[in-house]
Amino acid sequence: MSEGKKSVYKPKPVSGFPEWLPEVRIVEQQWLDHIRRVFESYGFCSVETPSVEELEVLHAKGEVDKEIYVLERLHKEEGDKEARLALHFDQTVPLARYVAQHWDKLVFPFKRYQMQRVWRGERPQAGRFREFTQCDIDVINNDTLPLHFDAEMPAIIWEVLNGLPGMEGQKIQVQISNRKILIGLLDSLQITDEMHVTKVLRAIDKSQKIGYTNVNLEIDAVLKGHPKLDELHHRLGLFTGYVATRFADDRMKFIAYADSLDIDSNIFRAGVRELEAVIKSIPPHIPNDAIVVNPELVRGLDYYTGTVYETVFINDPTYGSICSGGRYDDLASQYINKKLPGVGISIGFSRLFSYLYEKGALPVGAKSPAHILMVLPSEEERATAAKTADILRKNGFNVELFHAAKKIPDQLKYASRKGTPFVWFPFADGHQVKNMTTGEQKPADPQTWKPEKENINEAA
Amino acid sequence: MSEGKKSVYKPKPVSGFPEWLPEVRIVEQQWLDHIRRVFESYGFCSVETPSVEELEVLHAKGEVDKEIYVLERLHKEEGDKEARLALHFDQTVPLARYVAQHWDKLVFPFKRYQMQRVWRGERPQAGRFREFTQCDIDVINNDTLPLHFDAEMPAIIWEVLNGLPGMEGQKIQVQISNRKILIGLLDSLQITDEMHVTKVLRAIDKSQKIGYTNVNLEIDAVLKGHPKLDELHHRLGLFTGYVATRFADDRMKFIAYADSLDIDSNIFRAGVRELEAVIKSIPPHIPNDAIVVNPELVRGLDYYTGTVYETVFINDPTYGSICSGGRYDDLASQYINKKLPGVGISIGFSRLFSYLYEKGALPVGAKSPAHILMVLPSEEERATAAKTADILRKNGFNVELFHAAKKIPDQLKYASRKGTPFVWFPFADGHQVKNMTTGEQKPADPQTWKPEKENINEAA
Repeated sequence: MSEGKKSVYKPKPVSGFPEWLPEVRIVEQQWLDHIRRVFESYGFCSVETPSVEELEVLHAKGEVDKEIYVLERLHKEEGDKEARLALHFDQTVPLARYVAQHWDKLVFPFKRYQMQRVWRGERPQAGRFREFTQCDIDVINNDTLPLHFDAEMPAIIWEVLNGLPGMEGQKIQVQISNRKILIGLLDSLQITDEMHVTKVLRAIDKSQKIGYTNVNLEIDAVLKGHPKLDELHHRLGLFTGYVATRFADDRMKFIAYADSLDIDSNIFRAGVRELEAVIKSIPPHIPNDAIVVNPELVRGLDYYTGTVYETVFINDPTYGSICSGGRYDDLASQYINKKLPGVGISIGFSRLFSYLYEKGALPVGAKSPAHILMVLPSEEERATAAKTADILRKNGFNVELFHAAKKIPDQLKYASRKGTPFVWFPFADGHQVKNMTTGEQKPADPQTWKPEKENINEAA
Repeated sequence: MSEGKKSVYKPKPVSGFPEWLPEVRIVEQQWLDHIRRVFESYGFCSVETPSVEELEVLHAKGEVDKEIYVLERLHKEEGDKEARLALHFDQTVPLARYVAQHWDKLVFPFKRYQMQRVWRGERPQAGRFREFTQCDIDVINNDTLPLHFDAEMPAIIWEVLNGLPGMEGQKIQVQISNRKILIGLLDSLQITDEMHVTKVLRAIDKSQKIGYTNVNLEIDAVLKGHPKLDELHHRLGLFTGYVATRFADDRMKFIAYADSLDIDSNIFRAGVRELEAVIKSIPPHIPNDAIVVNPELVRGLDYYTGTVYETVFINDPTYGSICSGGRYDDLASQYINKKLPGVGISIGFSRLFSYLYEKGALPVGAKSPAHILMVLPSEEERATAAKTADILRKNGFNVELFHAAKKIPDQLKYASRKGTPFVWFPFADGHQVKNMTTGEQKPADPQTWKPEKENINEAA
């Protein structure tokens, strides 16, 4: 390479791996802090697991149909024998493995939250994340798990989502059902073959995406020639084709409706009773239309066995669920000979965050966490400026000391470009502080200074 | 597979990928919170980059000798053409790429912190991490960067490390030098060949590990037959073989010593002057033996061009550096045609945390963040218990509602096993709260209750 001429590799964004500028990252941190605060306020403990699991752990429940990233050491040598490692694609499999592995050291019911990145080895595609953050809460118990936890989940989620900065203008709705209701409906027609049940449920799960006509065609294909097919369509019609809002003004309406139907199946009845118990446990302060029954809801994943949840924007339901979950009777039996029922829910953090970002709804402001920029009036005054900054830091403020004794207007411009709300002047003849929002500048004592009330949120 | 008999895949820890039980994770979170708080108090903004970079980005500076994990999609099909992605092995390369990519949207000096996991595709080996967390701060500027930032780095690190829960019994020492000093020493003997300089510096860098005799043998091998070899050993002897504590009581002593030597090199003199400027900028509140000059220090990495740092336990220096960094004149020139000098330092978080864990020095306590366990006296009183829990949550407490109306002693036992400091009884004839540390139980009002002073840290 000839001297003086450098080869430059111009980097570009990697499709599916988002990153944010500092001013957006600050809001992302506020979101993560808020979510964590609410989760902890209900006594959930934090767990983080490694980014990888052994491929055998991911396969323990059978073939994985998710796209997975497997790791390869770049400098691996022939003959190196190692377990194959893959990046986790969700936080439920790692939780199951964690609970099985540390079972004797955990206190049950085990209530944990987990906020980590997960990866899907998808083909690069616009709008499709290949790395994203999920925020999960789950409760796991030995042998049995009270249904009250199934009611606690959507209540927590409602509190979390409504407290996120930027969500003020969005109306979200948690939808809830119980898988046993539709499984019981099939059972009442002697459709009990596991493969048939799974395929019918998966078809129904897609109704928002593909429409009822296509759902029905799929069901016809699965149950071709089944003597009860017509009756099945009739009965499904009793539950589907209705948006959840049908029962939005009173969750108990659905229970009365289900009880009025002539569907002979113990599974069906159990599902309705479980749903009733969950509904009755939902805290009274939550508005009726914030958590509603949606009997169409099944969730695609096989492992849910009872309560299921999804969460949609009321004004944009086609965006799909931003927060989903449910109950599983059997979390970890592939790793341990124990019955460990659980219930959990997962916020699709990155999906939700970037949705609001795209809409311009996030309160994106300062490019730095500094509350105060400390002016450096001259090199001689550096010690005073540094000491003043230290005093203010001890009082809980984030203080950036300007790095060079440039002209004051240049230093003010820097604060303004970074969005720093206050600028401090450590003048020899008395300290002053300038409120960058109002432009007001007045004398101040670093030992006792507090921002005016209207700025307290920005600066305290 | 026969029914009733399940195949169980017993999971085991994956070598090099640590995970913690909830009670340790709580301390880890306190550490991360504290580090972030200090970084932000100096006005550093948070940046997170994707876990991966394109292999070409990692290679932009030439072959990478670090062990790297490359990603492969499990279900990749023949002919899928995609950029090869690899997990980042540090946070400096991602920072360089980030600054180059977003250069026109950042405000300079750009002060960022980054606390993420990084990966090294090492062969599995006891005690060697393959996934670990680093906490980095760096300042990047256009064209020039004042040396004051080189002094701010160790001051921030000193504040960070001394405030970590569990570090009270540890004495750490930040060691500082300037690479130009040893490079200038070689220059004074006309040893300027880049390969020779690099190899000699790398040999000196290993002195703590391999001892001076072996360092000298390595230098002999590199410079075999060089006419100034004997003189080099003599001059190196003036700087090495001394522990940093030689200059521990007064950092300026080293400057006087270096100035007294007859070493004719502009590079050497520039290094001494830079180090002097940095030393003089170290805030006066930092004890002399907390930041000391160690002229042996060079750091193995090529990209440092001036100030360098390492941090050791004074009582266990052989554990190696827990926090290292330095100045680089040229961070991102492989990605952008700009001169972007920077200075940064990185805490080896996982190494440090697990070191203290192994020593039993971490304040490991409660298994949950709950301040209060709300007793459920009977199913009839569930609504009262839930409402009381809500009131206390609004007042800032983390409250776990016990899940079943079990006998009171069972509920107390649960709180005790989780380490929850207070238990609340929402009795119909008046609320009571029990302090689990003192055993004291007394009437309390959920609207106004606050923990006694001695428990305020646990519960507020």
